[in-house]
Amino acid sequence: MSSNTRARLAAESAEHLTSAPVELPARWYDFLPDLPVPLPPVRDESSPSAADIARQVRPKALLEQDRPAERWVPIPEPVADLLRRIGRPTPLHRARSLESALGTRARIYLKREDVLPTGSFKLNSAIAQAHYAAEEGRTTLVTETGAGQWGMSVALAAALHGLDSEVFMVRCSLDQKPYRRHYMELLGATVRASPSPDTSVGRELLARVPDHPGSLGTAISDAIRHTLDLGPAAAYLSGSGVPHVYLHQTLLGLEVQAQLEALDEPVGVPGRGDHLIACSGGGSNLCGLIGPFLASVGDGSRELRLLAAESTAAPRLTAGSYRYGRSDLAGLTPEVLGYSMGPDFVPPPVHTAGLRNHHSSAAVSLLRHHRWLDAVAVEERSALEAGLLVLRTEGLLLAPETTHALAAAVDVAARADQTGGEPVIVVLASGSGLLDLQSYHQVLAGGAR
Amino acid sequence: MSSNTRARLAAESAEHLTSAPVELPARWYDFLPDLPVPLPPVRDESSPSAADIARQVRPKALLEQDRPAERWVPIPEPVADLLRRIGRPTPLHRARSLESALGTRARIYLKREDVLPTGSFKLNSAIAQAHYAAEEGRTTLVTETGAGQWGMSVALAAALHGLDSEVFMVRCSLDQKPYRRHYMELLGATVRASPSPDTSVGRELLARVPDHPGSLGTAISDAIRHTLDLGPAAAYLSGSGVPHVYLHQTLLGLEVQAQLEALDEPVGVPGRGDHLIACSGGGSNLCGLIGPFLASVGDGSRELRLLAAESTAAPRLTAGSYRYGRSDLAGLTPEVLGYSMGPDFVPPPVHTAGLRNHHSSAAVSLLRHHRWLDAVAVEERSALEAGLLVLRTEGLLLAPETTHALAAAVDVAARADQTGGEPVIVVLASGSGLLDLQSYHQVLAGGAR
Repeated sequence: MSSNTRARLAAESAEHLTSAPVELPARWYDFLPDLPVPLPPVRDESSPSAADIARQVRPKALLEQDRPAERWVPIPEPVADLLRRIGRPTPLHRARSLESALGTRARIYLKREDVLPTGSFKLNSAIAQAHYAAEEGRTTLVTETGAGQWGMSVALAAALHGLDSEVFMVRCSLDQKPYRRHYMELLGATVRASPSPDTSVGRELLARVPDHPGSLGTAISDAIRHTLDLGPAAAYLSGSGVPHVYLHQTLLGLEVQAQLEALDEPVGVPGRGDHLIACSGGGSNLCGLIGPFLASVGDGSRELRLLAAESTAAPRLTAGSYRYGRSDLAGLTPEVLGYSMGPDFVPPPVHTAGLRNHHSSAAVSLLRHHRWLDAVAVEERSALEAGLLVLRTEGLLLAPETTHALAAAVDVAARADQTGGEPVIVVLASGSGLLDLQSYHQVLAGGAR
Repeated sequence: MSSNTRARLAAESAEHLTSAPVELPARWYDFLPDLPVPLPPVRDESSPSAADIARQVRPKALLEQDRPAERWVPIPEPVADLLRRIGRPTPLHRARSLESALGTRARIYLKREDVLPTGSFKLNSAIAQAHYAAEEGRTTLVTETGAGQWGMSVALAAALHGLDSEVFMVRCSLDQKPYRRHYMELLGATVRASPSPDTSVGRELLARVPDHPGSLGTAISDAIRHTLDLGPAAAYLSGSGVPHVYLHQTLLGLEVQAQLEALDEPVGVPGRGDHLIACSGGGSNLCGLIGPFLASVGDGSRELRLLAAESTAAPRLTAGSYRYGRSDLAGLTPEVLGYSMGPDFVPPPVHTAGLRNHHSSAAVSLLRHHRWLDAVAVEERSALEAGLLVLRTEGLLLAPETTHALAAAVDVAARADQTGGEPVIVVLASGSGLLDLQSYHQVLAGGAR
């Protein structure tokens, strides 16, 4: 696109409150070298080692993408093709009605991942991972899922690549959210409750606690164990927490950069208090958004506040301790240094299943530890009230996880107004709330009218 | 956009399988003068007359739009602004994976109304109608809804204009689809089951049949009666069947025309068997798609098959009789000449609530009567199987109503392949099926894998 055309489209779009058309990035960006210090080594003392297990269950290309040789990693054309087909680049939406309702001078932008066909940003990495698994001749994708967004994305990515999929879903979520199960099964996925009687780790857990409600920790254990049992035709995929997932999600930040540029809206202007805000569970939507901006934060060329919104149900970044821990229960993953609620922590049964992780990822924790990342814990009810405001003003019903970021943004805007600031605030709208209407209803009933 | 830029973007987009960016049409198009003969007069012999009732309950601007003075009706800027904000123009998606799965030489395009925030094309007219009601100082929008898509759209349009909304929802659908009720209530709508004890017509029905399951006919009667009771501060809005709704929905066909042109993909090429296909209940997505093409069909400049997909549960166009009838039960609307199952027809309780109307609209029926419009009745199970194929190939979960059009398109492609044709087939993807997962599950369970 010529710069003249882009400028005119940008001007039209600014007037029309949506972003100018931009192109899909050609490459993902490895931001790990931009962290304030290198990631600390993992602890891997089990036998067999977690690294050995990973080499068996993970596609080789993905392990290589955990430490890419080059900063910019070309997106294979079949992946790019599918990313375009599912609707990428997604819109960057100026939330002008929300701004009016708040009476703020802040300019608030929503990066709309809710428009993707599974209703969640998770699909970006699922498509990439399915591609590499298929390329290596693996025919079955195995994974775990909490609320179901990642499971839906893997089920769809598998179907689009002609692969089978098997999903271990946290038992209590499976019971609460039958629609997400139906979706996966329509795509041909086998969906099992975790802990599962079909794996040795699941059987062991159920023998001890017959009515175990499951957790992301049990589901990861079930999924890895099952992949090992299936042998080399199967691949285990993660939806968050590991570097190759963050790499795939850098599309979010790269698209935002191009879209803000097309709108002639610089971000990170000194003295203005500009913010990038995302909710943080496993950290992939947060890192995908902020990763491409870290270099400019580090070298001072942007003055930009990076803010993670977590749930008060699992306030690792705001109230946890910095320690080694792992994400699964059965010792199949390495211990990483991160902010943690401790291995025995059981989060309350909030609706926001995507933010109930007990241990924060290494990259997110490092950014927090070095104060490059701010964090705020949001109560579920306040979060959903912010979601309701966005529904009523912008017409967008966003996922309960996303509403934690919305609540944080509303707060940032209010504080800026008190101090006379006029920041640009970019919020990652990580997913749609259409399949979470029951959660909105249950939490806000009586308050809705 | 310069023609050079458009051509280059078109080339890039053709390669990338999605439509080039086009602009929102500046005007709606009144296609009624393009019908083969003028619409026959309505019969309006009740007292008070339906025309008198309409003058009380409908915004004046909308009644004027039933017979606009000019063929092209400018879209007011506040409406255009909102239409852009909700994501218009919507994508035109080349369904290349579906084509591959079918092994067809047809080129199949989906006009993706499923991406709108309420998951349905209905929002296009709701936003326009809410604008005119607000301009006339009406503060409450009243309507009926079957499956809930129109009710959701009115509830959202009301909220975006700061208006109240009251929705009468067919009782059996209200019980089956609690999510859609939750959505409307989150937006502040008052949702009542129809027949409703809160209106005189509802009370009369319930006195005769205490467990009446409701129908679109009872809900229209309840809604109009309630609007009359509320007085001039209220407005009654229709989601389909009347000319001003068709006018607003011509955005569909106008955008498709611009998008096909931007893709350098002519439609209506002689001898090729090109098709425009939409499902038909009240007729608004069908007329919105085909309306802007009627003039060129009439003057022979395009050779284009227009195809309505209806449900075998209410096969008016394929098995009904051409007669006068009305859409409500209480005689509050005029009798129009149309294909009908007769006033006493009770459709079986299929999931596809949007296609259960007993009487087809005047415009759709006239097109059918003069053989400008083909029609096919599709069994719900076949329809949802076509929907499943589109989910597994294109990753798009579409509404049960839409899947009737998909099944018709699959059939058209198969017949073209038998005769060596290579048609362009445009299918109106009228809505998302995310809130209909239970219907897919119930109908296809056991067949899903």
